[in-house]
Amino acid sequence: MTMTELTSDSSLTAVADLAAQLRVDSVRSSTSAGSGHPTSSMSAADLLAVLMTRYLRYDWTDPHEPGNDHLIFSKGHASPLLYAVFKAAGVVTDEELMTGYRRFGQRLEGHPTPVLPWVDVATGSLGQGLPDGVGVALAGKYLEWRPYRVWVLCGDSELAEGSIWEALDKASHYKLSNLVAMMDINRLGQSGPTDLGWDLDAYARRFEAFGARVLVIDGHDLAAIDSALAEAGEAAGEQPTVILARTIKGRGFTEVEDKEGWHGRPFPPDMAERAIAELGGVRNLMVRGPRPEPVPAGQTEAGPAKAAPATPSYPVGEKVATRKAYGDALVALGAADPTIVALDGEVKNSTFALEFAQAYPARYFEMFIAEQQLVAAATGMAARGYKPFASTFAAFFTRAYDFIRMGAISGANLRLAGSHAGVEIGADGPSQMALEDLAMMRAVHGSTVLYPADGTSTAALVEAMAGTPGISYLRTTRGAYPGLYPAGESFPIGGAKVLRSSDHDDVTLIGAGVTLHECLDAATTLAAEGITARVIDCYSIKPVDTATLTAAAEATSGRVVVAEDHHPEGGLGSAVTGALLAAGQKDLSVAHLAVREMPGSGTGTELLAWAGIDAGHIAAAARRLTGTH
Amino acid sequence: MTMTELTSDSSLTAVADLAAQLRVDSVRSSTSAGSGHPTSSMSAADLLAVLMTRYLRYDWTDPHEPGNDHLIFSKGHASPLLYAVFKAAGVVTDEELMTGYRRFGQRLEGHPTPVLPWVDVATGSLGQGLPDGVGVALAGKYLEWRPYRVWVLCGDSELAEGSIWEALDKASHYKLSNLVAMMDINRLGQSGPTDLGWDLDAYARRFEAFGARVLVIDGHDLAAIDSALAEAGEAAGEQPTVILARTIKGRGFTEVEDKEGWHGRPFPPDMAERAIAELGGVRNLMVRGPRPEPVPAGQTEAGPAKAAPATPSYPVGEKVATRKAYGDALVALGAADPTIVALDGEVKNSTFALEFAQAYPARYFEMFIAEQQLVAAATGMAARGYKPFASTFAAFFTRAYDFIRMGAISGANLRLAGSHAGVEIGADGPSQMALEDLAMMRAVHGSTVLYPADGTSTAALVEAMAGTPGISYLRTTRGAYPGLYPAGESFPIGGAKVLRSSDHDDVTLIGAGVTLHECLDAATTLAAEGITARVIDCYSIKPVDTATLTAAAEATSGRVVVAEDHHPEGGLGSAVTGALLAAGQKDLSVAHLAVREMPGSGTGTELLAWAGIDAGHIAAAARRLTGTH
Repeated sequence: MTMTELTSDSSLTAVADLAAQLRVDSVRSSTSAGSGHPTSSMSAADLLAVLMTRYLRYDWTDPHEPGNDHLIFSKGHASPLLYAVFKAAGVVTDEELMTGYRRFGQRLEGHPTPVLPWVDVATGSLGQGLPDGVGVALAGKYLEWRPYRVWVLCGDSELAEGSIWEALDKASHYKLSNLVAMMDINRLGQSGPTDLGWDLDAYARRFEAFGARVLVIDGHDLAAIDSALAEAGEAAGEQPTVILARTIKGRGFTEVEDKEGWHGRPFPPDMAERAIAELGGVRNLMVRGPRPEPVPAGQTEAGPAKAAPATPSYPVGEKVATRKAYGDALVALGAADPTIVALDGEVKNSTFALEFAQAYPARYFEMFIAEQQLVAAATGMAARGYKPFASTFAAFFTRAYDFIRMGAISGANLRLAGSHAGVEIGADGPSQMALEDLAMMRAVHGSTVLYPADGTSTAALVEAMAGTPGISYLRTTRGAYPGLYPAGESFPIGGAKVLRSSDHDDVTLIGAGVTLHECLDAATTLAAEGITARVIDCYSIKPVDTATLTAAAEATSGRVVVAEDHHPEGGLGSAVTGALLAAGQKDLSVAHLAVREMPGSGTGTELLAWAGIDAGHIAAAARRLTGTH
Repeated sequence: MTMTELTSDSSLTAVADLAAQLRVDSVRSSTSAGSGHPTSSMSAADLLAVLMTRYLRYDWTDPHEPGNDHLIFSKGHASPLLYAVFKAAGVVTDEELMTGYRRFGQRLEGHPTPVLPWVDVATGSLGQGLPDGVGVALAGKYLEWRPYRVWVLCGDSELAEGSIWEALDKASHYKLSNLVAMMDINRLGQSGPTDLGWDLDAYARRFEAFGARVLVIDGHDLAAIDSALAEAGEAAGEQPTVILARTIKGRGFTEVEDKEGWHGRPFPPDMAERAIAELGGVRNLMVRGPRPEPVPAGQTEAGPAKAAPATPSYPVGEKVATRKAYGDALVALGAADPTIVALDGEVKNSTFALEFAQAYPARYFEMFIAEQQLVAAATGMAARGYKPFASTFAAFFTRAYDFIRMGAISGANLRLAGSHAGVEIGADGPSQMALEDLAMMRAVHGSTVLYPADGTSTAALVEAMAGTPGISYLRTTRGAYPGLYPAGESFPIGGAKVLRSSDHDDVTLIGAGVTLHECLDAATTLAAEGITARVIDCYSIKPVDTATLTAAAEATSGRVVVAEDHHPEGGLGSAVTGALLAAGQKDLSVAHLAVREMPGSGTGTELLAWAGIDAGHIAAAARRLTGTH
């Protein structure tokens, strides 16, 4: 098979040939797989052909080359086009394209994920690739100081997602001139025309109002694309660039061009044959586009680590809020590790991310009240090797659940810290009370869920999070509670602490965070009544310490009280009972105390009592289990 | 105590006096409570004083009067101002304001909820009141055909939330001239200045680009406010109105005006005293503003119900996708009940909401790819007494989790239908696979979670959802599976079906949705080996049928296999084991089969096998439990 090689000097005629190849390969791979989105790929093929030949600075032999540009398909369903690009770049074979796409056990998945080394972030939930790209561009401009550009291909349907506008807002706020969003305005969504159709003026007004430089082009005019990409790629000025490309869905195959009913449908073999014929047949052009700019020596290095200060600890018995310990610990971590960065959703004085922002202003990113962008920016930075800690009220991470879920698919190492959990917060009322966060975070694939009860354990766990892969989540408490552990105590992820125990314990009391303090108080009350309680600090909710839990259940004839400041479903109680049952524990008698009604305002103390999760209710449950009530 | 009454004819001097009262009362209530947001209330007091005196058409004696305007505080933390308005309207006493605000067991919660009859929707998670208001305005314009207006007070910090732009996009798309958003641009957020500060031009460009009529005013100039509200309230034209009001945080108390560090902080008593003195002391003005417009006879009636067609059913053994049955059932429901409405996130051909859209185009609302607005619009419509069914891919409801959570706090009756659940969807890959949705939805307060396995049960459950209060969620499956139940079978919420049983069952197999079919196949395999399995269709995951589960566990010596197409945390397995333990079931031997690794693409069959949740793995687990492997 002869291959023609294109370089950045190749003519636009040659580029047109490449564009036809990208379309043909999109048709072929999706027809071979029996599913996929050929028409959504064909609309953007000209943009990608010009980009990869002339502007994308990329060393295809080394996806980890630090100077590489980044290419993100926010419209992840156009994966046939992306994989056709990979074939043209020589990193995926035609055979893999034709036998691997959307097949079991293969890497060319229905929507791109970083299983492929040229993919930074998983996409497929629309409106996420651009926010993630903002994170990559923030890293490039403010952390790495590298000249790479971030090219993001968006569909027009996804411009209805609010997250796109959060991304643009932050891109202009942070003057991300290294970010280019290519909008493939093909007018047709999945089930009908888009809201704005081909009203490119309307789009232009929106993007300009959000601070972007906007270039409007015919997305099938190679010369127009070429000059727009040239201008965009200069990364001059202080604005992100938005290229509004008017395109035709299914472009290149007249039977389907601009027709409804062809979203997400591969062509049947006979149609595919006609499409390929109309597009001039199968090609095997190879592209050697521009190389990445050399990274000047010294420019790629993060600042040297300072002498690492000790992880903070707090005197036993002295009151400190775990959210405060989070801030303190983050500052200590930041000194030791220059790749630690912090982001917050404009509540940094409440989450105590403020301490990090003051200590390392160059590594703090204010995301304002935009939790989706908060998590997406962290995802983009994580893709560049940084260790982002993103914080907001625990309740408001619910706003970003789709981004957290997709972060897990990206394999991103994200550290999330949610403050003000549960009814304990008191007067602000239920809108500010995280009561679903443990369930939400536990259900994320590969996640780690931590909920410490005192300052010393919080600080140790924040340090542990820095070395924890995947999505880790720390739940912190609003109020200040007494220190429980001496300095130097270790808190491995997956562990638990037995705070009270004897050889003749009658019942096990399990708490985490605020309810651990209630468990301890209950144990004191019970002791006075002759009931001996084992008390467990289940600070690691996922993974949970099955050995400690089963030993306790064994020792206390299966009598277990679990108390949590969370709805009954999916949280601490669920983690504990699930672990006990999975370990084969028999004869369990579990009292599960949780927040079962809708709270209102009040003091934390009033609300813990109202919810039935305070020391009094824990003691009462223990009495019931031990038959002494 | 003498009271002066203001009417819409009162002078602006009198209105200024009212504005001072609103400020004074905001200071007093928050200081008395020891928490709250006086300065965020003071910036908007002039807007509210003019609005309630001259423009808000509202019968305070009857919050259910159908012609009433609607007042939504999207900046819910300005609750002191809202409650001061209620005092001036005569519906909350000064005593309640001073002793009830933010107190335990009281209705003047930290952030407003519909516990108060003049509040349509709960706010406090920022960026939600405006999207909810879009839902109310949609109901007013397209369902009720009533002349009421929807006035929404937004803060400037929340304009960073993407959901605000989703709301504006839909407000202009649907030409909601009955919607007025009043933007309180006071420049200061919680922890620092906002992104755009007082750049009202920048805001104006954004809102104009999103299709709103924009009026820029000094938010403390009563005459300017008056003419802007007059213009906005005319609800002429086809655009929503945005009033950009330049304001000063803490306005009226010079010690704190425009100063950082005063967000969410009540004044200490001595400062409060000085503030009240500077504002001219305590007042008790009463306001009798405009009355609602009379609703013309006949205009308020929903169309008459047609003869109700039977709930669809499907032949036993014939394959149908549950998502298709959802669409069919919704059409049947829509004929019987004119208050049923449907909304979808631009995947209506996949969720089969398309059937409803085609049958009742006037009651279908396309929300495009904006899941937050999808749920918010449903919340607003529910607040007006409609029965919205909102659908999208199950995975994409994660995008709206904060809105679902807040919907529960609103007490909204929302019906959500999520299609394409689990690895069963196959080739599209993990971004499209809901694997956290059961955990997420179970953790919502008061929720109902349903997951039927065939068409007949789906249709029955859709009908049941119409009569179910709170947040109900239906999980549907992509593929078609054989009908299991005859027409007329009943499926109560909270029930389960025993599909195979005998007097000598060895093991219980529990499935829902796709895994129920796998359980049935496993039972057949096991029967041939002499192992008798009881098979349970746990179609109601919350509430779960404890009686049926415990009877089965009892009958099978505690041997239970649960299989779910979901991550292991918080889903079907958690519901089942939680119920068994809560019922005091002893000696459980549970095999919990769930999706424990990150899936890729493949066929549904391949992926069910890969995940270990297909018939083969269920049978193997049963063999292990029965000691016959």
